[in-house]
Amino acid sequence: MGRRAKDPEIRKKEFVEAALELFQTKGFDQTFVTDITNKVGVSHGAFFYYYKSKDDILQDVIDACIAVDVRFVKGLIEDGKMTAKEKLKVILSTSVNSSRNRDQNRLAEFFHRAANARFHRDYTKRSREQIIPLLTEIVEQGIREGYCEIKYPKETILYLSYIFESIDDSFSMPQSNEEYYRKIRALEMIVVKSLGIKDDDLGLIDFMA
Amino acid sequence: MGRRAKDPEIRKKEFVEAALELFQTKGFDQTFVTDITNKVGVSHGAFFYYYKSKDDILQDVIDACIAVDVRFVKGLIEDGKMTAKEKLKVILSTSVNSSRNRDQNRLAEFFHRAANARFHRDYTKRSREQIIPLLTEIVEQGIREGYCEIKYPKETILYLSYIFESIDDSFSMPQSNEEYYRKIRALEMIVVKSLGIKDDDLGLIDFMA
Repeated sequence: MGRRAKDPEIRKKEFVEAALELFQTKGFDQTFVTDITNKVGVSHGAFFYYYKSKDDILQDVIDACIAVDVRFVKGLIEDGKMTAKEKLKVILSTSVNSSRNRDQNRLAEFFHRAANARFHRDYTKRSREQIIPLLTEIVEQGIREGYCEIKYPKETILYLSYIFESIDDSFSMPQSNEEYYRKIRALEMIVVKSLGIKDDDLGLIDFMA
Repeated sequence: MGRRAKDPEIRKKEFVEAALELFQTKGFDQTFVTDITNKVGVSHGAFFYYYKSKDDILQDVIDACIAVDVRFVKGLIEDGKMTAKEKLKVILSTSVNSSRNRDQNRLAEFFHRAANARFHRDYTKRSREQIIPLLTEIVEQGIREGYCEIKYPKETILYLSYIFESIDDSFSMPQSNEEYYRKIRALEMIVVKSLGIKDDDLGLIDFMA
Protein backbone atom coordinates (compact mmCIF):
# COMPACT_ATOMS: atom_id res chain seq x y z
CA MET A 1 0.00 0.00 0.00
CA GLY A 2 1.37 3.39 -0.97
CA ARG A 3 1.70 6.49 1.20
CA ARG A 4 -1.72 7.77 2.04
CA ALA A 5 -2.52 10.83 -0.13
CA LYS A 6 -3.84 14.00 1.40
CA ASP A 7 -7.55 14.72 1.05
CA PRO A 8 -7.78 16.34 -2.43
CA GLU A 9 -9.86 19.25 -1.12
CA ILE A 10 -7.27 20.04 1.56
CA ARG A 11 -4.45 19.81 -0.96
CA LYS A 12 -6.28 22.10 -3.40
CA LYS A 13 -6.84 24.61 -0.59
CA GLU A 14 -3.09 24.61 0.09
CA PHE A 15 -2.37 25.25 -3.58
CA VAL A 16 -4.91 28.06 -3.76
CA GLU A 17 -3.61 29.75 -0.61
CA ALA A 18 -0.02 29.55 -1.83
CA ALA A 19 -0.99 30.81 -5.31
CA LEU A 20 -3.06 33.66 -3.92
CA GLU A 21 -0.19 34.85 -1.73
CA LEU A 22 2.31 34.59 -4.58
CA PHE A 23 -0.01 36.31 -7.09
CA GLN A 24 -0.50 39.14 -4.60
CA THR A 25 3.15 39.64 -3.73
CA LYS A 26 5.12 38.64 -6.85
CA GLY A 27 2.32 39.19 -9.36
CA PHE A 28 0.60 36.58 -11.54
CA ASP A 29 3.00 36.83 -14.45
CA GLN A 30 6.10 36.54 -12.26
CA THR A 31 4.80 33.49 -10.42
CA PHE A 32 5.81 30.12 -11.81
CA VAL A 33 4.20 26.79 -11.02
CA THR A 34 7.45 25.80 -9.25
CA ASP A 35 7.01 28.78 -6.91
CA ILE A 36 3.62 27.40 -5.94
CA THR A 37 4.82 23.82 -5.48
CA ASN A 38 7.89 24.99 -3.52
CA LYS A 39 5.66 26.95 -1.18
CA VAL A 40 3.36 23.96 -0.64
CA GLY A 41 6.36 21.61 -0.43
CA VAL A 42 5.29 19.13 -3.10
CA SER A 43 6.65 18.03 -6.46
CA HIS A 44 6.04 19.93 -9.68
CA GLY A 45 3.91 17.05 -10.97
CA ALA A 46 1.57 17.16 -7.96
CA PHE A 47 0.28 20.54 -9.15
CA PHE A 48 -0.73 19.15 -12.53
CA TYR A 49 -2.71 16.39 -10.88
CA TYR A 50 -5.12 19.09 -9.69
CA TYR A 51 -4.71 21.90 -12.23
CA LYS A 52 -4.10 22.09 -15.95
CA SER A 53 -2.24 25.40 -15.78
CA LYS A 54 -1.66 28.64 -13.88
CA ASP A 55 -4.73 30.10 -15.62
CA ASP A 56 -6.68 27.14 -14.28
CA ILE A 57 -5.75 27.69 -10.61
CA LEU A 58 -6.52 31.39 -11.07
CA GLN A 59 -10.20 30.43 -11.27
CA ASP A 60 -10.00 28.90 -7.81
CA VAL A 61 -8.02 31.89 -6.54
CA ILE A 62 -10.82 34.17 -7.81
CA ASP A 63 -13.37 32.03 -5.97
CA ALA A 64 -11.26 32.26 -2.82
CA CYS A 65 -11.17 36.07 -3.08
CA ILE A 66 -14.93 36.23 -3.57
CA ALA A 67 -15.36 33.91 -0.57
CA VAL A 68 -13.44 36.43 1.58
CA ASP A 69 -15.82 39.22 0.54
CA VAL A 70 -18.82 36.96 1.12
CA ARG A 71 -17.65 36.06 4.63
CA PHE A 72 -17.06 39.75 5.38
CA VAL A 73 -20.57 40.82 4.29
CA LYS A 74 -22.19 37.78 5.94
CA GLY A 75 -20.43 38.72 9.18
CA LEU A 76 -22.04 42.16 8.98
CA ILE A 77 -25.47 40.69 8.19
CA GLU A 78 -25.29 38.41 11.21
CA ASP A 79 -24.19 41.22 13.53
CA GLY A 80 -27.32 41.88 15.56
CA LYS A 81 -26.02 45.10 17.16
CA MET A 82 -25.06 47.19 14.14
CA THR A 83 -27.61 49.34 12.35
CA ALA A 84 -27.90 49.17 8.56
CA LYS A 85 -26.35 52.64 8.46
CA GLU A 86 -23.24 51.42 10.27
CA LYS A 87 -23.03 48.36 8.06
CA LEU A 88 -23.31 50.39 4.87
CA LYS A 89 -20.62 52.77 6.09
CA VAL A 90 -18.21 49.90 6.73
CA ILE A 91 -18.88 48.40 3.30
CA LEU A 92 -18.47 51.70 1.47
CA SER A 93 -15.29 52.72 3.20
CA THR A 94 -13.78 49.26 2.78
CA SER A 95 -14.53 49.36 -0.96
CA VAL A 96 -13.06 52.81 -1.44
CA ASN A 97 -9.99 52.00 0.64
CA SER A 98 -9.23 48.86 -1.31
CA SER A 99 -9.50 50.86 -4.55
CA ARG A 100 -7.08 53.45 -3.22
CA ASN A 101 -4.59 50.80 -2.14
CA ARG A 102 -4.80 48.86 -5.35
CA ASP A 103 -1.15 49.42 -6.18
CA GLN A 104 -0.16 47.62 -2.98
CA ASN A 105 -1.97 44.49 -4.09
CA ARG A 106 -0.40 42.89 -7.11
CA LEU A 107 -3.34 40.60 -7.72
CA ALA A 108 -5.61 43.64 -8.03
CA GLU A 109 -3.01 45.21 -10.28
CA PHE A 110 -3.04 42.05 -12.36
CA PHE A 111 -6.82 42.19 -12.79
CA HIS A 112 -6.60 45.77 -13.93
CA ARG A 113 -3.97 45.22 -16.55
CA ALA A 114 -5.59 45.59 -20.00
CA ALA A 115 -4.46 42.17 -21.20
CA ASN A 116 -6.15 40.53 -18.19
CA ALA A 117 -9.47 42.31 -18.59
CA ARG A 118 -11.22 39.00 -19.28
CA PHE A 119 -10.21 37.67 -15.84
CA HIS A 120 -11.42 40.86 -14.21
CA ARG A 121 -14.72 40.58 -16.05
CA ASP A 122 -15.09 37.02 -14.88
CA TYR A 123 -14.28 38.03 -11.32
CA THR A 124 -16.83 40.85 -11.21
CA LYS A 125 -19.57 38.76 -12.80
CA ARG A 126 -19.15 35.89 -10.37
CA SER A 127 -18.74 38.27 -7.45
CA ARG A 128 -21.99 40.08 -8.27
CA GLU A 129 -24.01 36.88 -8.21
CA GLN A 130 -22.95 36.20 -4.64
CA ILE A 131 -22.63 39.69 -3.17
CA ILE A 132 -25.74 41.49 -4.53
CA PRO A 133 -28.24 39.30 -2.62
CA LEU A 134 -26.27 39.89 0.60
CA LEU A 135 -26.10 43.66 0.13
CA THR A 136 -29.83 43.61 -0.62
CA GLU A 137 -30.39 42.03 2.81
CA ILE A 138 -28.55 44.92 4.48
CA VAL A 139 -30.58 47.51 2.57
CA GLU A 140 -33.76 45.64 3.53
CA GLN A 141 -32.64 45.94 7.16
CA GLY A 142 -32.27 49.67 6.43
CA ILE A 143 -35.84 49.79 5.10
CA ARG A 144 -37.13 48.09 8.26
CA GLU A 145 -35.19 50.57 10.40
CA GLY A 146 -36.71 53.48 8.43
CA TYR A 147 -33.22 54.46 7.31
CA CYS A 148 -33.62 53.62 3.61
CA GLU A 149 -36.60 54.35 1.39
CA ILE A 150 -36.30 52.59 -1.90
CA LYS A 151 -38.60 50.91 -4.38
CA TYR A 152 -36.31 48.53 -6.25
CA PRO A 153 -33.56 47.50 -3.82
CA LYS A 154 -32.10 44.55 -5.73
CA GLU A 155 -31.91 46.40 -9.06
CA THR A 156 -30.56 49.57 -7.48
CA ILE A 157 -27.82 47.68 -5.67
CA LEU A 158 -26.88 45.96 -8.92
CA TYR A 159 -26.43 49.37 -10.56
CA LEU A 160 -24.48 50.72 -7.60
CA SER A 161 -22.26 47.67 -7.77
CA TYR A 162 -21.43 48.59 -11.38
CA ILE A 163 -20.09 51.87 -10.03
CA PHE A 164 -17.99 50.21 -7.33
CA GLU A 165 -16.57 47.76 -9.86
CA SER A 166 -15.17 50.73 -11.80
CA ILE A 167 -14.17 53.21 -9.09
CA ASP A 168 -10.68 51.76 -9.09
CA ASP A 169 -10.15 53.60 -12.36
CA SER A 170 -11.10 56.77 -10.62
CA PHE A 171 -9.44 56.42 -7.18
CA SER A 172 -6.15 54.82 -8.07
CA MET A 173 -4.98 57.69 -10.30
CA PRO A 174 -2.85 60.52 -8.88
CA GLN A 175 -5.04 63.42 -7.81
CA SER A 176 -5.24 66.44 -5.57
CA ASN A 177 -6.97 66.31 -2.17
CA GLU A 178 -9.69 68.52 -3.61
CA GLU A 179 -10.34 66.12 -6.49
CA TYR A 180 -10.33 63.17 -4.12
CA TYR A 181 -12.75 64.91 -1.77
CA ARG A 182 -15.16 65.70 -4.61
CA LYS A 183 -15.06 62.09 -5.80
CA ILE A 184 -15.76 60.68 -2.34
CA ARG A 185 -18.58 63.13 -1.73
CA ALA A 186 -20.14 62.52 -5.16
CA LEU A 187 -19.97 58.76 -4.57
CA GLU A 188 -21.50 59.11 -1.13
CA MET A 189 -24.31 61.26 -2.53
CA ILE A 190 -25.17 58.78 -5.28
CA VAL A 191 -25.42 56.01 -2.70
CA VAL A 192 -27.37 58.15 -0.24
CA LYS A 193 -29.86 59.40 -2.83
CA SER A 194 -30.28 56.09 -4.65
CA LEU A 195 -31.03 54.26 -1.41
CA GLY A 196 -33.37 57.03 -0.26
CA ILE A 197 -31.30 57.86 2.83
CA LYS A 198 -32.38 61.12 4.43
CA ASP A 199 -29.02 62.13 5.99
CA ASP A 200 -27.27 63.13 2.79
CA ASP A 201 -24.05 62.32 4.65
CA LEU A 202 -22.80 58.89 5.63
CA GLY A 203 -19.74 60.49 7.18
CA LEU A 204 -17.60 58.64 4.66
CA ILE A 205 -14.95 61.37 4.60
CA ASP A 206 -14.38 61.26 8.39
CA PHE A 207 -14.49 57.52 8.32
CA MET A 208 -11.68 57.43 5.76
CA ALA A 209 -9.48 60.13 7.23
CA MET B 1 5.30 59.56 -62.81
CA GLY B 2 3.14 56.91 -61.12
CA ARG B 3 -0.58 56.93 -60.66
CA ARG B 4 -1.49 59.59 -58.14
CA ALA B 5 -2.20 57.93 -54.77
CA LYS B 6 -5.35 58.74 -52.86
CA ASP B 7 -5.02 61.10 -49.89
CA PRO B 8 -3.96 58.73 -47.06
CA GLU B 9 -6.62 60.10 -44.70
CA ILE B 10 -9.37 59.45 -47.24
CA ARG B 11 -8.07 55.95 -47.90
CA LYS B 12 -7.90 55.19 -44.17
CA LYS B 13 -11.44 56.41 -43.79
CA GLU B 14 -12.56 53.99 -46.53
CA PHE B 15 -10.80 51.12 -44.75
CA VAL B 16 -12.33 52.00 -41.40
CA GLU B 17 -15.86 52.30 -42.84
CA ALA B 18 -15.52 48.98 -44.64
CA ALA B 19 -14.05 47.29 -41.55
CA LEU B 20 -16.74 48.72 -39.26
CA GLU B 21 -19.52 47.45 -41.50
CA LEU B 22 -17.92 44.01 -41.83
CA PHE B 23 -17.21 43.73 -38.09
CA GLN B 24 -20.83 44.64 -37.39
CA THR B 25 -22.40 42.24 -39.87
CA LYS B 26 -19.97 39.29 -40.13
CA GLY B 27 -18.29 39.76 -36.76
CA PHE B 28 -14.66 40.63 -36.06
CA ASP B 29 -13.38 37.06 -35.99
CA GLN B 30 -15.10 36.09 -39.24
CA THR B 31 -13.79 39.12 -41.11
CA PHE B 32 -10.55 38.66 -43.03
CA VAL B 33 -8.30 41.41 -44.32
CA THR B 34 -9.26 40.31 -47.87
CA ASP B 35 -12.92 41.03 -47.04
CA ILE B 36 -11.92 44.58 -46.16
CA THR B 37 -9.74 45.10 -49.24
CA ASN B 38 -12.40 43.55 -51.52
CA LYS B 39 -14.98 45.95 -50.12
CA VAL B 40 -12.72 48.95 -50.65
CA GLY B 41 -11.61 47.60 -54.04
CA VAL B 42 -7.86 47.64 -53.46
CA SER B 43 -5.10 45.04 -53.27
CA HIS B 44 -4.34 43.02 -50.15
CA GLY B 45 -1.00 44.82 -49.83
CA ALA B 46 -2.63 48.27 -49.77
CA PHE B 47 -4.16 47.45 -46.39
CA PHE B 48 -0.77 46.71 -44.84
CA TYR B 49 0.56 50.03 -46.02
CA TYR B 50 -1.79 51.64 -43.50
CA TYR B 51 -2.32 48.96 -40.86
CA LYS B 52 -0.18 46.30 -39.26
CA SER B 53 -3.11 43.92 -38.61
CA LYS B 54 -6.83 43.53 -38.05
CA ASP B 55 -6.27 44.38 -34.35
CA ASP B 56 -4.59 47.56 -35.51
CA ILE B 57 -7.52 48.79 -37.63
CA LEU B 58 -9.86 47.92 -34.75
CA GLN B 59 -8.36 50.87 -32.86
CA ASP B 60 -9.49 53.22 -35.64
CA VAL B 61 -12.87 51.50 -35.79
CA ILE B 62 -13.27 52.13 -32.04
CA ASP B 63 -12.42 55.79 -32.59
CA ALA B 64 -14.98 55.96 -35.41
CA CYS B 65 -17.68 54.49 -33.10
CA ILE B 66 -16.84 57.01 -30.37
CA ALA B 67 -16.95 59.79 -32.96
CA VAL B 68 -20.54 58.80 -33.81
CA ASP B 69 -21.56 59.09 -30.15
CA VAL B 70 -19.71 62.40 -29.84
CA ARG B 71 -21.50 63.84 -32.89
CA PHE B 72 -24.84 62.65 -31.50
CA VAL B 73 -24.34 64.30 -28.10
CA LYS B 74 -22.83 67.45 -29.64
CA GLY B 75 -25.91 67.70 -31.87
CA LEU B 76 -28.08 67.70 -28.75
CA ILE B 77 -25.89 70.28 -27.01
CA GLU B 78 -26.14 72.61 -29.97
CA ASP B 79 -29.92 72.23 -30.22
CA GLY B 80 -31.19 75.56 -28.89
CA LYS B 81 -34.82 74.46 -28.65
CA MET B 82 -34.63 71.31 -26.53
CA THR B 83 -34.66 71.49 -22.75
CA ALA B 84 -32.06 69.58 -20.73
CA LYS B 85 -34.87 67.25 -19.67
CA GLU B 86 -35.65 66.35 -23.28
CA LYS B 87 -31.97 65.90 -24.07
CA LEU B 88 -31.39 63.60 -21.09
CA LYS B 89 -34.43 61.54 -22.04
CA VAL B 90 -33.09 61.02 -25.57
CA ILE B 91 -29.66 60.01 -24.27
CA LEU B 92 -31.03 57.58 -21.69
CA SER B 93 -33.47 55.88 -24.03
CA THR B 94 -30.84 55.61 -26.77
CA SER B 95 -28.40 53.97 -24.34
CA VAL B 96 -30.94 51.48 -23.04
CA ASN B 97 -32.19 50.66 -26.53
CA SER B 98 -28.72 49.96 -27.84
CA SER B 99 -28.10 47.64 -24.88
CA ARG B 100 -31.31 45.76 -25.60
CA ASN B 101 -30.45 45.37 -29.27
CA ARG B 102 -26.90 44.29 -28.67
CA ASP B 103 -27.42 40.89 -30.23
CA GLN B 104 -28.27 42.56 -33.54
CA ASN B 105 -24.90 44.30 -33.62
CA ARG B 106 -22.05 41.88 -34.01
CA LEU B 107 -19.44 44.48 -33.16
CA ALA B 108 -21.12 45.04 -29.79
CA GLU B 109 -21.30 41.28 -29.42
CA PHE B 110 -17.58 41.12 -30.16
CA PHE B 111 -16.78 43.66 -27.45
CA HIS B 112 -18.76 41.67 -24.92
CA ARG B 113 -17.13 38.37 -25.60
CA ALA B 114 -14.90 37.49 -22.61
CA ALA B 115 -11.76 37.05 -24.71
CA ASN B 116 -12.19 40.58 -26.10
CA ALA B 117 -12.69 42.28 -22.75
CA ARG B 118 -9.47 44.26 -23.21
CA PHE B 119 -10.85 45.90 -26.36
CA HIS B 120 -14.07 46.73 -24.56
CA ARG B 121 -12.13 48.24 -21.68
CA ASP B 122 -10.14 50.33 -24.11
CA TYR B 123 -13.33 51.45 -25.84
CA THR B 124 -15.07 52.51 -22.62
CA LYS B 125 -12.01 54.34 -21.28
CA ARG B 126 -11.49 56.36 -24.43
CA SER B 127 -15.21 56.96 -24.80
CA ARG B 128 -15.49 58.34 -21.24
CA GLU B 129 -12.78 60.92 -21.84
CA GLN B 130 -14.75 62.41 -24.73
CA ILE B 131 -18.35 61.89 -23.64
CA ILE B 132 -18.30 62.87 -19.93
CA PRO B 133 -17.45 66.56 -20.57
CA LEU B 134 -20.30 66.74 -23.11
CA LEU B 135 -22.84 65.13 -20.80
CA THR B 136 -21.70 67.51 -18.07
CA GLU B 137 -22.61 70.42 -20.37
CA ILE B 138 -26.15 69.07 -20.71
CA VAL B 139 -26.52 68.66 -16.94
CA GLU B 140 -25.20 72.20 -16.49
CA GLN B 141 -27.93 73.37 -18.85
CA GLY B 142 -30.33 71.48 -16.58
CA ILE B 143 -28.95 73.33 -13.54
CA ARG B 144 -29.49 76.68 -15.31
CA GLU B 145 -33.04 75.65 -16.20
CA GLY B 146 -33.70 74.73 -12.56
CA TYR B 147 -34.31 71.13 -13.62
CA CYS B 148 -31.24 69.57 -11.98
CA GLU B 149 -29.87 70.28 -8.53
CA ILE B 150 -26.49 68.72 -8.07
CA LYS B 151 -23.25 69.54 -6.33
CA TYR B 152 -20.65 67.51 -8.21
CA PRO B 153 -21.92 67.18 -11.79
CA LYS B 154 -18.72 65.94 -13.46
CA GLU B 155 -18.01 63.28 -10.83
CA THR B 156 -21.64 62.16 -10.66
CA ILE B 157 -21.84 61.77 -14.43
CA LEU B 158 -18.64 59.74 -14.38
CA TYR B 159 -20.22 57.35 -11.87
CA LEU B 160 -23.46 57.18 -13.83
CA SER B 161 -21.44 56.39 -16.93
CA TYR B 162 -19.97 53.37 -15.10
CA ILE B 163 -23.52 52.10 -14.74
CA PHE B 164 -24.36 52.62 -18.40
CA GLU B 165 -21.16 50.87 -19.46
CA SER B 166 -22.38 47.75 -17.67
CA ILE B 167 -26.14 47.77 -18.23
CA ASP B 168 -25.67 45.61 -21.30
CA ASP B 169 -25.03 42.75 -18.91
CA SER B 170 -28.37 43.44 -17.36
CA PHE B 171 -30.58 44.30 -20.35
CA SER B 172 -29.38 41.83 -22.95
CA MET B 173 -30.31 38.75 -20.90
CA PRO B 174 -33.69 37.05 -21.35
CA GLN B 175 -36.18 38.36 -18.81
CA SER B 176 -39.86 38.84 -18.09
CA ASN B 177 -41.62 42.15 -18.77
CA GLU B 178 -41.90 42.66 -15.02
CA GLU B 179 -38.13 42.25 -14.54
CA TYR B 180 -37.45 44.55 -17.45
CA TYR B 181 -39.85 47.17 -16.09
CA ARG B 182 -38.20 47.07 -12.64
CA LYS B 183 -34.75 47.48 -14.19
CA ILE B 184 -35.78 50.46 -16.32
CA ARG B 185 -37.53 52.12 -13.40
CA ALA B 186 -34.60 51.52 -11.02
CA LEU B 187 -32.19 52.94 -13.60
CA GLU B 188 -34.39 55.96 -14.16
CA MET B 189 -34.63 56.57 -10.42
CA ILE B 190 -30.86 56.43 -9.90
CA VAL B 191 -30.40 59.01 -12.66
CA VAL B 192 -33.25 61.20 -11.42
CA LYS B 193 -32.09 61.15 -7.78
CA SER B 194 -28.37 61.49 -8.52
CA LEU B 195 -28.95 64.51 -10.73
CA GLY B 196 -31.37 66.03 -8.22
CA ILE B 197 -34.32 66.00 -10.62
CA LYS B 198 -37.61 66.68 -8.88
CA ASP B 199 -39.94 64.75 -11.24
CA ASP B 200 -38.94 61.25 -10.14
CA ASP B 201 -40.08 60.17 -13.61
CA LEU B 202 -38.34 60.89 -16.89
CA GLY B 203 -41.07 58.98 -18.70
CA LEU B 204 -38.46 56.52 -19.86
CA ILE B 205 -40.89 53.61 -19.94
CA ASP B 206 -43.33 55.40 -22.30
CA PHE B 207 -40.45 56.62 -24.37
CA MET B 208 -39.21 53.07 -24.90
CA ALA B 209 -42.56 51.40 -25.53
